[in-house]
Amino acid sequence: MSHEDIMAAARRIAPFIRRTPVVKLDHATGANLQNDVYLKLECLQVSGSFKIRGATNRVKTLEPGRIENGLVAASGGNHGLATAYVAARAGAPATIYLPNNASPLKAEKLRKWGADVRFQGKVWDEAHEAASAEAKARGAFYMHPFADAQIVSGQGTVALEMVDQIPDADIYIVAIGGGGLISGMSEVLKHVKPDARIVGVEPTGSPTLHASLTAGRVVRLPEITTKVATMACGRTDESIYEIVAKHVDDIVLVEDADMQKAAEVLWFEFGIAADLSGAASLAALMSGAFKPPRGARIAGLVCGAGVEGLNG
Amino acid sequence: MSHEDIMAAARRIAPFIRRTPVVKLDHATGANLQNDVYLKLECLQVSGSFKIRGATNRVKTLEPGRIENGLVAASGGNHGLATAYVAARAGAPATIYLPNNASPLKAEKLRKWGADVRFQGKVWDEAHEAASAEAKARGAFYMHPFADAQIVSGQGTVALEMVDQIPDADIYIVAIGGGGLISGMSEVLKHVKPDARIVGVEPTGSPTLHASLTAGRVVRLPEITTKVATMACGRTDESIYEIVAKHVDDIVLVEDADMQKAAEVLWFEFGIAADLSGAASLAALMSGAFKPPRGARIAGLVCGAGVEGLNG
Repeated sequence: MSHEDIMAAARRIAPFIRRTPVVKLDHATGANLQNDVYLKLECLQVSGSFKIRGATNRVKTLEPGRIENGLVAASGGNHGLATAYVAARAGAPATIYLPNNASPLKAEKLRKWGADVRFQGKVWDEAHEAASAEAKARGAFYMHPFADAQIVSGQGTVALEMVDQIPDADIYIVAIGGGGLISGMSEVLKHVKPDARIVGVEPTGSPTLHASLTAGRVVRLPEITTKVATMACGRTDESIYEIVAKHVDDIVLVEDADMQKAAEVLWFEFGIAADLSGAASLAALMSGAFKPPRGARIAGLVCGAGVEGLNG
Repeated sequence: MSHEDIMAAARRIAPFIRRTPVVKLDHATGANLQNDVYLKLECLQVSGSFKIRGATNRVKTLEPGRIENGLVAASGGNHGLATAYVAARAGAPATIYLPNNASPLKAEKLRKWGADVRFQGKVWDEAHEAASAEAKARGAFYMHPFADAQIVSGQGTVALEMVDQIPDADIYIVAIGGGGLISGMSEVLKHVKPDARIVGVEPTGSPTLHASLTAGRVVRLPEITTKVATMACGRTDESIYEIVAKHVDDIVLVEDADMQKAAEVLWFEFGIAADLSGAASLAALMSGAFKPPRGARIAGLVCGAGVEGLNG
């Protein structure tokens, strides 16, 4: 996957997605930010997250007829919504496997897009096993959320917009589930802004890339304890690991409670309804898990919509 | 109030507010829109609505010491939040009167900004009577939501941004409660874009300006039946009536259920958490209450944040 692949993906998906807006986090009395922070609102994206970028690029690059037997995906929520959306638009059936702790509201939204929703397993990896077996048995197309260069190229397009919308950012903070988003984005950022620093954020209860980078190879986590379904992944893919090892400067860990608090600030002070992964960039700053240098300009991403911050 | 007053207000309040983003309502499968529609997201504004513009301009133009005894307001919710916010930032106490049907979540948010919240009466007009009596008795400053040129000038600043952000809009659709927003905006629009058409939206259960324009003078509605507290107002002010009569081209009426449906589309397809007045511009289009000419480009406003669409 090259920068040119991502440029091609951007051209391919442009008619089907939104160029989401960026807001500056000013007047944030509860966040106590010491730096200029900008957030790109992918929570306002088609299907509710950046995942529509990869899903659209994937479907548009398949041979004709490949999705006749439907699309199958396993997802913490957002990749499933994107898959269900593109399936509905293409007139193909979608079957979405969710781990048991996925958001019930996202399950409901999946059904409204016409998906067959199945809860399976405690974490994404178990849903993934069931879903890929189902796809194989049925001859349906399995939409892998990250071990697929067309998916990752699609996710990377968000960075093309960010460098245009926030031209003077020094540091990019990106949430990690399986690593598809940050690897696609980092291909763009290291090409266009080689001096920019890229910081990944994982839950302390699902440090997939952090553990793999520490081990020097892809490892499977012995246990996943985060409740943030969209960021829970027991094992990434070698292709993702290689890109992250090459391009990502830091991976920081945040508690679920840090993301909850950040989601509440996003709602209370900004009217932004983010899911907990969508609050991860801000959580890294508010919690002190990532301490940016004085004067550094920060670009983050509200990667998905949700109601988690609205109860605080 | 002149265009120059609104320009002055914009310069005055700029350090304290956000320039909120605009989104195009594309890929809106549930809205079935025939025109290009752009919405300015004032739901992402400081305090959760455009009301912070007027409240900030009002406080910044008072003589020093005038708010020592506090600020008092009566509000369907959003003007109260703005008043509480500016009071908290100025270190002054805020007392906010709400009608009984105001959003409980907004009451909770008011308390978090430190306001003394009092429920009074069935509609805004009753809360207004109690609040203005309280302000007079205490020597506090009463923040009228519309019968105040500095408030209206502040609200009008939203139109300065809209003409810059959506330069080719032909028609502006604006929700009406007491009429402060649309009168301020219309002063700007008729000055900068004299050919633009301005359409106001009122609930069928609170047609304040519609009834007054029909009568040819300000009238008091005999009854208010809308449940949308932020758009319920039994009587506007003569100053507002005169501007609206001069500048506003149409006033259309929508049902509460139309706004509910539009709020659900905003959440489901756009990740925008709007209150029902925030969904009024879209409701006017989706319901057919306003039928724009073919090819006309529409600018609307999501005037306030809320959770009303999240249950659909």
